[in-house]
Amino acid sequence: MSLIEDLVVAYRTLAEEGVIDAYGHVSVRSESNPKRYLMARQLAPELVTENDILEFDLDSKPIDPRDRKFYNERYIHGEIYRARPDVMAVVHNHAPAVVPFSCVPRSALKPIFHMSAFIGLGVPNWDIRDAQKGTDMLVRTPALGQSLAKKLAAYPAVLMRGHGATCVGENLQRAVGRSVYLELNARMQFQAIVLAGSKGKITFMDAKEVAANVSWQNYDRSWNLWRTRALAKLKAEKS
Amino acid sequence: MSLIEDLVVAYRTLAEEGVIDAYGHVSVRSESNPKRYLMARQLAPELVTENDILEFDLDSKPIDPRDRKFYNERYIHGEIYRARPDVMAVVHNHAPAVVPFSCVPRSALKPIFHMSAFIGLGVPNWDIRDAQKGTDMLVRTPALGQSLAKKLAAYPAVLMRGHGATCVGENLQRAVGRSVYLELNARMQFQAIVLAGSKGKITFMDAKEVAANVSWQNYDRSWNLWRTRALAKLKAEKS
Amino acid sequence: MSLIEDLVVAYRTLAEEGVIDAYGHVSVRSESNPKRYLMARQLAPELVTENDILEFDLDSKPIDPRDRKFYNERYIHGEIYRARPDVMAVVHNHAPAVVPFSCVPRSALKPIFHMSAFIGLGVPNWDIRDAQKGTDMLVRTPALGQSLAKKLAAYPAVLMRGHGATCVGENLQRAVGRSVYLELNARMQFQAIVLAGSKGKITFMDAKEVAANVSWQNYDRSWNLWRTRALAKLKAEKS
Amino acid sequence: MSLIEDLVVAYRTLAEEGVIDAYGHVSVRSESNPKRYLMARQLAPELVTENDILEFDLDSKPIDPRDRKFYNERYIHGEIYRARPDVMAVVHNHAPAVVPFSCVPRSALKPIFHMSAFIGLGVPNWDIRDAQKGTDMLVRTPALGQSLAKKLAAYPAVLMRGHGATCVGENLQRAVGRSVYLELNARMQFQAIVLAGSKGKITFMDAKEVAANVSWQNYDRSWNLWRTRALAKLKAEKS
Repeated sequence: MSLIEDLVVAYRTLAEEGVIDAYGHVSVRSESNPKRYLMARQLAPELVTENDILEFDLDSKPIDPRDRKFYNERYIHGEIYRARPDVMAVVHNHAPAVVPFSCVPRSALKPIFHMSAFIGLGVPNWDIRDAQKGTDMLVRTPALGQSLAKKLAAYPAVLMRGHGATCVGENLQRAVGRSVYLELNARMQFQAIVLAGSKGKITFMDAKEVAANVSWQNYDRSWNLWRTRALAKLKAEKS
Repeated sequence: MSLIEDLVVAYRTLAEEGVIDAYGHVSVRSESNPKRYLMARQLAPELVTENDILEFDLDSKPIDPRDRKFYNERYIHGEIYRARPDVMAVVHNHAPAVVPFSCVPRSALKPIFHMSAFIGLGVPNWDIRDAQKGTDMLVRTPALGQSLAKKLAAYPAVLMRGHGATCVGENLQRAVGRSVYLELNARMQFQAIVLAGSKGKITFMDAKEVAANVSWQNYDRSWNLWRTRALAKLKAEKS
Repeated sequence: MSLIEDLVVAYRTLAEEGVIDAYGHVSVRSESNPKRYLMARQLAPELVTENDILEFDLDSKPIDPRDRKFYNERYIHGEIYRARPDVMAVVHNHAPAVVPFSCVPRSALKPIFHMSAFIGLGVPNWDIRDAQKGTDMLVRTPALGQSLAKKLAAYPAVLMRGHGATCVGENLQRAVGRSVYLELNARMQFQAIVLAGSKGKITFMDAKEVAANVSWQNYDRSWNLWRTRALAKLKAEKS
Repeated sequence: MSLIEDLVVAYRTLAEEGVIDAYGHVSVRSESNPKRYLMARQLAPELVTENDILEFDLDSKPIDPRDRKFYNERYIHGEIYRARPDVMAVVHNHAPAVVPFSCVPRSALKPIFHMSAFIGLGVPNWDIRDAQKGTDMLVRTPALGQSLAKKLAAYPAVLMRGHGATCVGENLQRAVGRSVYLELNARMQFQAIVLAGSKGKITFMDAKEVAANVSWQNYDRSWNLWRTRALAKLKAEKS
């Protein structure tokens, strides 16, 4: 019950913070059964309520489909949960400042802002063509999900060329927070690249700083704010 | 009735998404008579309601003008409907990140984001001076509308130099969605051009990816969100 | 009465459109006495109501000061009304994308967007140091106002280095519209300069296009929208 | 009582103006005891109310902790109040356009906009590694707070590499106003750097202009606006 409410908060927050348009999604691993995960039916994040949440198995098949439709790209979630037992939450976003970094080979995301320290653990860039050519860019099959999960490996996030990113975490608030701060880091790094010019130097966080930060960074204070906002909005919608 | 409501939703959405200021407009071909189309009287999109919608013939003459005023540029719509029997909806927008691309000969829009795949079908750039010199830049005559329609040819959108763009589709939601994602692609491509620098490479969607995406991309989930938002706002305005 | 209401609409619109922060102001020449103008007491534009509007003479002295405080820079208005009998409304703004253009000698604003055609009539750049060195940058005296008015000459707007801009018009809606579209043109031109690179060409509006556009461009449809928005907000504040 | 209300207004304003995310904070020196300061418990600024305000001594120990949690970085505040008897208010922000300037050695912030004249007094850039290597970037100890206060010296603000900035003032509204206009200056200076290109010149405020402006600039009119907005929102939350 509480986990479903948190998942609705996550959907609403990702929409509110502008890192997903109508097409992103977020899931959380079931607390009672690690071989299942919770996610919304096919619906824009801004509209998701508790009634829209369903359970899926690791093949991304809905346990109780009824007459509902599902995200075509649910294999992103199922295959990452299968490959990464440590991951409890997955966000697939279309963060707008991140996409350009996924399309320019010479520019890799690096941690420029302490709230985005997790980027220092590495954020690989997945090109769907390495798995299958001629797709519509969507992760529509288990095989594509497996390819993405393989590229993600043990990292906290993976870019998807011309598409967006997928962020993971040990809990919902970390996967959501990483999505928000991946976008903010991309905006800041873009500006730093321009300021530095072709020969200028940019000071990124060093490896020790990254390690010292990611060990505890759970986005608690943000989550408290996001949760307060989302619950107030949900309450207003009901009345 | 339902088509008129959808057209009002389209007006409100284009304003809400920031791709038209007070001066853009959207139309839809009549369901009962393919030689007619529906469009609002001369009014800012944010203010349009069902009572403002009128019918026009393909010469862009209002069927029942009464004392109302009409968009000077209605010939954009009439001449495209005449030239393109496949087109059921037309949006003329002032998308702010698109205008700079229309003014820089060396920069053509290319599909960088999978939601904007239709750009890969080609988006020509129309300079009104090729049809007539010394205008105020507005498509005020049938001849100018025909020139624009000729430049559009069979493409999904056409830029208008120093002015904006016109996007078309087989239905309203596609023409609206293309307007929103043309703008978003322009922002992302701008950033990628900066990141790539003068010698860097940008990875755009390839032709097969474009083809695989545009065959089905109807912006259904966005439309559902936009419609829900717009109808809620219209309801609040009435009470 | 109606002119005062329009002036309040102008204040609210400039704040809503983001071209003035707490420190800009707008005035209108009196309809009954061309040697007087109407402007608010010293107050952030977002808070201005009809009760805050006062009358000033062309020396920028309030006719009925009572215990109220006035904008230090009211001489911008009085001296322009004195020098320019054709001007009926003046806006002093801090348009954020315009300021950088005022600080970079090699970059002059040029008309890139048809809604901003008036820029093609010329927008000079005033450096307060040419009139007086060591000021706090504010137009605090009649002499500074006269210097600004002289630089404005017969143009529709003048940049103020490191400060903002002043836009004028034959009526309120034109001065407000020019403030909004000066900012939008600056944003678009900035992007075009980046896209064009150091050797690229930008296609601006040509002189005939500018002339054909400015002859009629009154921002009527925008004004109708802005007025509707502002009056709805004022009504909500009262209830 | 009134000072506490002002402090709540400051929290709300910094969130509303987008210069702090969930993690910034603002404090004010006690009026009755210069060896104490007031600050909120650990909470996102957007949520702070009068009940969340506590008193701290200059060692940043809460006078009446009860069961509440405190900002890890409260030493920023205590150590600056200790080192700078003239400072009555301190803001620690994560202003997003400022961070890139803190990471690019060749780019120093300079005053480009008259509302940001205080930058001309000097804004040094603090790298936490000069005090301690391998931190998580947070000012978690008195020693780190002292190092930051030493870098701030007699200046009005100090950047914190990869983190944000700290702004101080003789009163709350000045520390808040400086945070808002530090961000706006960073955005304008970024654009000017791009417009100027590698060899272009940018005209910043000169030393006399800076001096003439900072002598009186108190952001009174902004503060009146911000206070009106924040109190209206607080009132709406209670009802």
